[in-house]
Amino acid sequence: MCQLLGMSSDQPTDICFSFTEFKARGGATDHHADGWGIAFYEGQDVRVLRDPQASCASPLAELISRHPILSTNVVAHIRKATCGGVGLQNTHPFHRELWGKHWVFAHNGCLRGFTPALSGRFQPVGETDSELAFCWLLQRLSDAFGESEPAGERLLSCLQALAIELAPHGTFNFLLSNGRGLYAHSSSRLSHLCRQVPLAERPVGEAAQRSIIVATTPLTEDESWVSMPAGSLWCFRDGLPESMLATRPGTPLD
Amino acid sequence: MCQLLGMSSDQPTDICFSFTEFKARGGATDHHADGWGIAFYEGQDVRVLRDPQASCASPLAELISRHPILSTNVVAHIRKATCGGVGLQNTHPFHRELWGKHWVFAHNGCLRGFTPALSGRFQPVGETDSELAFCWLLQRLSDAFGESEPAGERLLSCLQALAIELAPHGTFNFLLSNGRGLYAHSSSRLSHLCRQVPLAERPVGEAAQRSIIVATTPLTEDESWVSMPAGSLWCFRDGLPESMLATRPGTPLD
Repeated sequence: MCQLLGMSSDQPTDICFSFTEFKARGGATDHHADGWGIAFYEGQDVRVLRDPQASCASPLAELISRHPILSTNVVAHIRKATCGGVGLQNTHPFHRELWGKHWVFAHNGCLRGFTPALSGRFQPVGETDSELAFCWLLQRLSDAFGESEPAGERLLSCLQALAIELAPHGTFNFLLSNGRGLYAHSSSRLSHLCRQVPLAERPVGEAAQRSIIVATTPLTEDESWVSMPAGSLWCFRDGLPESMLATRPGTPLD
Repeated sequence: MCQLLGMSSDQPTDICFSFTEFKARGGATDHHADGWGIAFYEGQDVRVLRDPQASCASPLAELISRHPILSTNVVAHIRKATCGGVGLQNTHPFHRELWGKHWVFAHNGCLRGFTPALSGRFQPVGETDSELAFCWLLQRLSDAFGESEPAGERLLSCLQALAIELAPHGTFNFLLSNGRGLYAHSSSRLSHLCRQVPLAERPVGEAAQRSIIVATTPLTEDESWVSMPAGSLWCFRDGLPESMLATRPGTPLD
């Protein structure tokens, strides 16, 4: 199974610590050796670094572990190829521009019989069900809201409807970001963790510095990871859960 | 002035040699210290690596020099900020998807009074005239040809018309690629060089292995660089010039 990792922070934060543990799952401690990728937002723009080789053997992954990149939103993925061969064009996160913002998307799961009609505005380059689903999502968002971005709540409601529409096709755990919000859908499993630098350890007058880490499975054993119910769609922003909606009848939401 | 560097090869080739000389111009031997970027095509996909700091001090640039990335098409840029502040969102090459292909674009020059009406399909994220021109180019290509890519000649003719339309706004040297063709417009200056591994040095039965290198100014002194006339638009493919068209009356074309 693929592995997802995301981060939302209120201040630019480096993800080295989490990434090192996550990266080891790509071929060393686990069997996801078919590529990896990570997207770091930096202001309005995003760096997308991907490699179709195992992350534990990748010089690019090594560079990221050694040179911290500060970011407020991160989306990362380690791949176990199921749909589409091993190659850069099938390596997550995928990336498109919509409404003058960069969007990135990573998916865990498998969609069967999903052959939507695409208008052509967003077209897949590779062969994965995941990139196809991303193009379809962006097309539907663009169809729904025209040429300017809606308010966060309307966007989340639309994503909820789209996640429900996709549900019959299979597992659709995903992370999606536009650099401001981190949208996370738990279709089968996903966990998150809130980290905050304790007041006593902060320089006087420094802001909170809190982060949310989202991962397919908890990355550490000594922290309080929260299991996100199957059938829940979350929006994280500035290191906090902002809202969540059910994508399945009877999902227990707090 | 910004610096452009491009490569088209008939086989995956590493650009380390040219890049090392090019990179030194980013703050060491020259004064282009406001960011740099490079796009490497790999199959249908592209890696885009950018840094808003001087390339001579960038760990990412160092990594590229040490770990060769094999590619058939490369577009690179070193920036001297003139329009738009220093930041990742203003760092070339810019990147969008059209017709299920990744397109990258880098520009040298300055466009004045260029405020085209954009439909919204491609919107700039940063503040440069260059990204605006790229969005406008892609919009016009998409308007002209609909949802599928035209043959190479029709594409080049359309780019010619667009370059002519832009000419009154200023200098518009650019490199554009979709991973198959490398389109290079010399609005004021650009040079290219053909490199071919001599037959005697090739393993028996190995294909030609030829490359075209395109650069703002020649990168070496002991090779035969060809100056591309101001007002000429070129398409390079598989390491050869495929076609060229004038974008200014009286351009001397071979």
